[in-house]
Amino acid sequence: MLVVMKQNASEEEIGRVVDQIQAMGYDARPIPGLQRTAVGLIGNDGRVDSARLEGLPGVLEVISVSHPYKQVSREWKEEDTIVTLSNGTRIGGSEIAVMAGPCAVESRGQILETAHLLQEMGATILRAGAFKPRSSPYSFQGLGIEGLRYLAEAREATGMAVVTEALDAEGVKAVAEYADIVQIGARSMQNYALLRSAGQCGKPVLLKRGMSATIKELLLSAEYLLAEGNGEVILCERGVRSFDTHTRNLLDLTAIPVVKSLSHLPIIADPSHGTGIRAKVTPMARAAVAAGADGLMIEVHPRPEEALSDGAQSLYPEQFADLMGQIRVIARAIDRDFVPSLHGVAPAVTAS
Amino acid sequence: MLVVMKQNASEEEIGRVVDQIQAMGYDARPIPGLQRTAVGLIGNDGRVDSARLEGLPGVLEVISVSHPYKQVSREWKEEDTIVTLSNGTRIGGSEIAVMAGPCAVESRGQILETAHLLQEMGATILRAGAFKPRSSPYSFQGLGIEGLRYLAEAREATGMAVVTEALDAEGVKAVAEYADIVQIGARSMQNYALLRSAGQCGKPVLLKRGMSATIKELLLSAEYLLAEGNGEVILCERGVRSFDTHTRNLLDLTAIPVVKSLSHLPIIADPSHGTGIRAKVTPMARAAVAAGADGLMIEVHPRPEEALSDGAQSLYPEQFADLMGQIRVIARAIDRDFVPSLHGVAPAVTAS
Amino acid sequence: MLVVMKQNASEEEIGRVVDQIQAMGYDARPIPGLQRTAVGLIGNDGRVDSARLEGLPGVLEVISVSHPYKQVSREWKEEDTIVTLSNGTRIGGSEIAVMAGPCAVESRGQILETAHLLQEMGATILRAGAFKPRSSPYSFQGLGIEGLRYLAEAREATGMAVVTEALDAEGVKAVAEYADIVQIGARSMQNYALLRSAGQCGKPVLLKRGMSATIKELLLSAEYLLAEGNGEVILCERGVRSFDTHTRNLLDLTAIPVVKSLSHLPIIADPSHGTGIRAKVTPMARAAVAAGADGLMIEVHPRPEEALSDGAQSLYPEQFADLMGQIRVIARAIDRDFVPSLHGVAPAVTAS
Amino acid sequence: MLVVMKQNASEEEIGRVVDQIQAMGYDARPIPGLQRTAVGLIGNDGRVDSARLEGLPGVLEVISVSHPYKQVSREWKEEDTIVTLSNGTRIGGSEIAVMAGPCAVESRGQILETAHLLQEMGATILRAGAFKPRSSPYSFQGLGIEGLRYLAEAREATGMAVVTEALDAEGVKAVAEYADIVQIGARSMQNYALLRSAGQCGKPVLLKRGMSATIKELLLSAEYLLAEGNGEVILCERGVRSFDTHTRNLLDLTAIPVVKSLSHLPIIADPSHGTGIRAKVTPMARAAVAAGADGLMIEVHPRPEEALSDGAQSLYPEQFADLMGQIRVIARAIDRDFVPSLHGVAPAVTAS
Repeated sequence: MLVVMKQNASEEEIGRVVDQIQAMGYDARPIPGLQRTAVGLIGNDGRVDSARLEGLPGVLEVISVSHPYKQVSREWKEEDTIVTLSNGTRIGGSEIAVMAGPCAVESRGQILETAHLLQEMGATILRAGAFKPRSSPYSFQGLGIEGLRYLAEAREATGMAVVTEALDAEGVKAVAEYADIVQIGARSMQNYALLRSAGQCGKPVLLKRGMSATIKELLLSAEYLLAEGNGEVILCERGVRSFDTHTRNLLDLTAIPVVKSLSHLPIIADPSHGTGIRAKVTPMARAAVAAGADGLMIEVHPRPEEALSDGAQSLYPEQFADLMGQIRVIARAIDRDFVPSLHGVAPAVTAS
Repeated sequence: MLVVMKQNASEEEIGRVVDQIQAMGYDARPIPGLQRTAVGLIGNDGRVDSARLEGLPGVLEVISVSHPYKQVSREWKEEDTIVTLSNGTRIGGSEIAVMAGPCAVESRGQILETAHLLQEMGATILRAGAFKPRSSPYSFQGLGIEGLRYLAEAREATGMAVVTEALDAEGVKAVAEYADIVQIGARSMQNYALLRSAGQCGKPVLLKRGMSATIKELLLSAEYLLAEGNGEVILCERGVRSFDTHTRNLLDLTAIPVVKSLSHLPIIADPSHGTGIRAKVTPMARAAVAAGADGLMIEVHPRPEEALSDGAQSLYPEQFADLMGQIRVIARAIDRDFVPSLHGVAPAVTAS
Repeated sequence: MLVVMKQNASEEEIGRVVDQIQAMGYDARPIPGLQRTAVGLIGNDGRVDSARLEGLPGVLEVISVSHPYKQVSREWKEEDTIVTLSNGTRIGGSEIAVMAGPCAVESRGQILETAHLLQEMGATILRAGAFKPRSSPYSFQGLGIEGLRYLAEAREATGMAVVTEALDAEGVKAVAEYADIVQIGARSMQNYALLRSAGQCGKPVLLKRGMSATIKELLLSAEYLLAEGNGEVILCERGVRSFDTHTRNLLDLTAIPVVKSLSHLPIIADPSHGTGIRAKVTPMARAAVAAGADGLMIEVHPRPEEALSDGAQSLYPEQFADLMGQIRVIARAIDRDFVPSLHGVAPAVTAS
Repeated sequence: MLVVMKQNASEEEIGRVVDQIQAMGYDARPIPGLQRTAVGLIGNDGRVDSARLEGLPGVLEVISVSHPYKQVSREWKEEDTIVTLSNGTRIGGSEIAVMAGPCAVESRGQILETAHLLQEMGATILRAGAFKPRSSPYSFQGLGIEGLRYLAEAREATGMAVVTEALDAEGVKAVAEYADIVQIGARSMQNYALLRSAGQCGKPVLLKRGMSATIKELLLSAEYLLAEGNGEVILCERGVRSFDTHTRNLLDLTAIPVVKSLSHLPIIADPSHGTGIRAKVTPMARAAVAAGADGLMIEVHPRPEEALSDGAQSLYPEQFADLMGQIRVIARAIDRDFVPSLHGVAPAVTAS
């Protein structure tokens, strides 16, 4: 950590920074420059709170050289974390895992029909929201516990694993009971109470990047989960907010190799929310895999035009089958495997 | 609401949009154009869920002409909402309300000392966090209930009202018991479970704009509070995320007149978080009042260099006294009052 | 085009909008709504200037339903534009074109050495700046005409085509004389005088997306080139400005399929500027091709550590050879060809 | 300047950074840390090109501690620069200067009528575009030289100074001949050839901040002007690009105190482009002055509904008169003067 002093900082002010650093238990090393002096903090173990230094008189800025996170970093754990689900799907290894399903559980019939379709097409993880965070209080908010039960039924019927979102501590408990992966959505990435609950829930957690979260903030939120003892964390890039309204969000695929160099955790991409446009989902799914994603989360609805939410970005089942074929080819091209479908046969679809 | 069709949309696809609109209980009016047809939805009462239309085949985009919120809008209630606190401070009327205090409650002594200082200088509302949302799990997270008790003690001692943040449903209950205003922080703006709790807590709510929330999203989050029956809502502009690292956030003061034209709710500004730099707080506080803000939230610490968080943006008490003087002059210049200090005497400070 | 009136707009104000639309030579169709009236403008040929309507009293906003560009759109020309260079390289067809080279021409030796290396590795277009736009007046600004001569020499020696940037009208003439493609850089995307010069220069133009340009603005800038009669335009996604400093820019790969659906023009990606980090160039190059890019622009330097600019994002030659192998595999996987190398033999590199 | 090494950087790589720094003529000082080593560059005179270091093997990032600009900085010149025009208006002193007028010169009659109106109301500088940069090639592009002649005529008739935009080197010459201030628009902020022309034109220059330019980039562009010997530079904040479409741009008023602390140059604000909405211009003009702006640039049109461009953000003359009254009151409140109107009498308008 480097404490940069203002140009006209006095010797006394520099001395005070040195004293404060030493009082915090670290070594201080002043570095005089032509324009200004900086004071290096030596021995930062990733826990230094820069706020204790920023407020001192004469300080211009505090620059972090070390990362503020620990357990999520490659330096803490060099080998890739692989999350293994009870149905055998592995996320973070050489395989590409595919999570697919509708935005929301709308009815028992809808989710069972979808799960059977997707399982046939080779997806091994079923996604669908039972608790829906909606920007308007007047929009459909999900079926709640009833939705979780339908998901569990679909799981029994198809062998697929289930991932679904929790919005509060109570929801984490319910989701952890019925599903295989607890999803923390983009709007909740900095809901630290929720992160702590999820860190203690005993199930793998899918953590989505917030709407305007930096990669550092995403990793710090993941650190909350690991700090609670839950090392089975999957990150998810789902697009950030930007100035162009052509797409719903700006899918930041570079985040994938950046995260993989900084952290041992697996990272997947969600091109459905990342683009918000059905016709862009397949090319961006291909691109995500080519960029190194460990998996994909894709919205598919048996009849998107009847969807209660996100219909515009949900694929038709035949589009999803085609996407699976294309992903398989890209995966092979970069020497990655494709998660074998649950019925033991490579789905009979081909790239177009 | 206008459903814009793709250029090559078929008659059948247009017909389907018309049918869907009618099935939702509204009138549909196709508008043929040179390049493409659009279908107008007539009779939108602000509750139409565009997701039901976006997924239909042949639809290019759905454009909202009406607002998606209701009770927060000027059209629902024309006159300004004024929130009155038990110590007589009014927010949203002709007066400028000032909330001031340290980032966090650090100790009983610190908060009592600060409250006395601020009350002397004319602030009537004390701010300080007992529950702190911190991006790192290793940073100071606040004193919790103990902090709330110290705040209540400071309230007794000075007559100041208290505003402090709640992070979850349990916290809302505790804050509502000890404080006058329940604050929902920027990171929680789309924590809908929390909004519902706050909407039912029986105390006024201060709702801060999220890091990258649009004004529409801010108003939709406020709608959650009003939909629960709580009309005493104060909005707060605290800066949005941007690309320039010179300031911590980009304080969007234009949001103030924009919100005031769209909504009857009061809006204040937080130039401390909005800039993140002590030296910029005073000019931006002046600017916020000149732009029409109904109040200010300012971080002040008796000894910023010892602050456990946000020291770099906390004012020294004498700087705050000077700011109060400057704000008073600007307020008068635009024919607004200044909230009278609690000891009945205009504080003896002057603008510089 | 839809002119949305304020809620309290008078009949007279609505009438005035109708009159203005008719005076501009179009049909007007008022659409009454529950909250407000809108007036549709029928017959928009893409040349309506909305500014003439936005200023009228009672107007809330003007919403464009048609695109403001014409000749660049798919609707104007349905089949893909293919730009063919004199050395046989085709951009916009089934092949992936690769432009590679150092950020700047630094010396005759450097550019000749690089060109020979790259041609051996299969690149068919040489990139290098002779005129460099630099944010500081004290940074290296390029060799100018001398640089262009070295590029021409490298072209003679290797058979590679040359692309290089022009910064003003005079520069366009010089570049058009020595090179095969005139590049308009990101900072110049809205330099309309320069666009007009480039539109008249008789050579293909590579137009880079501006730092914070929307896709619509990119296409409008391309329209300037086509309006001057130059249809040989190649677009380039090179990253947009964002809030995260982990990467130099945020490479917006979704822009590729979005542009391809809106326009017939080819689009390539520049992952070197798009990421600014050497180690992220190869995965993002793969991702760009998987997303549908018609080509790549890659910075390669024989000795990046000696580069006068952009050394941190320049590949080492052996990294580039490896990238070429990986791109070839991805291209095949999505049924695209790879531009044959100029010496008639597939370069002897393999994917890793 | 601090060169941060990767965690696993070898001694040899660190040695190479030290050698390169010394070869560039500076001192190098390695600072070992717990996680990684950094190398300080001592003696940076603001001209170090970090690109020479970023490309070296083992380098993680290069952090600038010094500013990359020189002559624009407060450290180069401590006292405020004051630009004095031939009609006596001073920009950068204690007075608030007001530049007002229509977006574009549309006709001789329009500009003469407007100038007389504005001069009566107390503005001393006339703004209007003769050369208009328009995103569509089909929009009105300005009257060119003819427009400059009308502006000069208005100047003769009213005594107002004239500011108008130049788009290329030729335009700079023409504008410098007819007008008092050469404006460089937001889209041209990084058109370095244009900046050099403007730096040599012998007239004061108004430099607008680019759409997504950081404050550092704005100051670097100003440095181009000063490096050419032109010290009469006025900066202008006019809003940056953001994600919320409620306003045309996001007016970044905090840039005003930030620029004033970093630089001695005057800075004004343009709330017309900064908001894009007529009703928001007056509150944001007040806020800009309260934040410390040295002046304002305001779009006023005698009949905004007939404006050929930017009608929606142009004030009606009576709104401008009202704004002048409000600004005067705010200026006085912060102990600033108001530029005396040219007819020697304080305009007879009052704040409302």
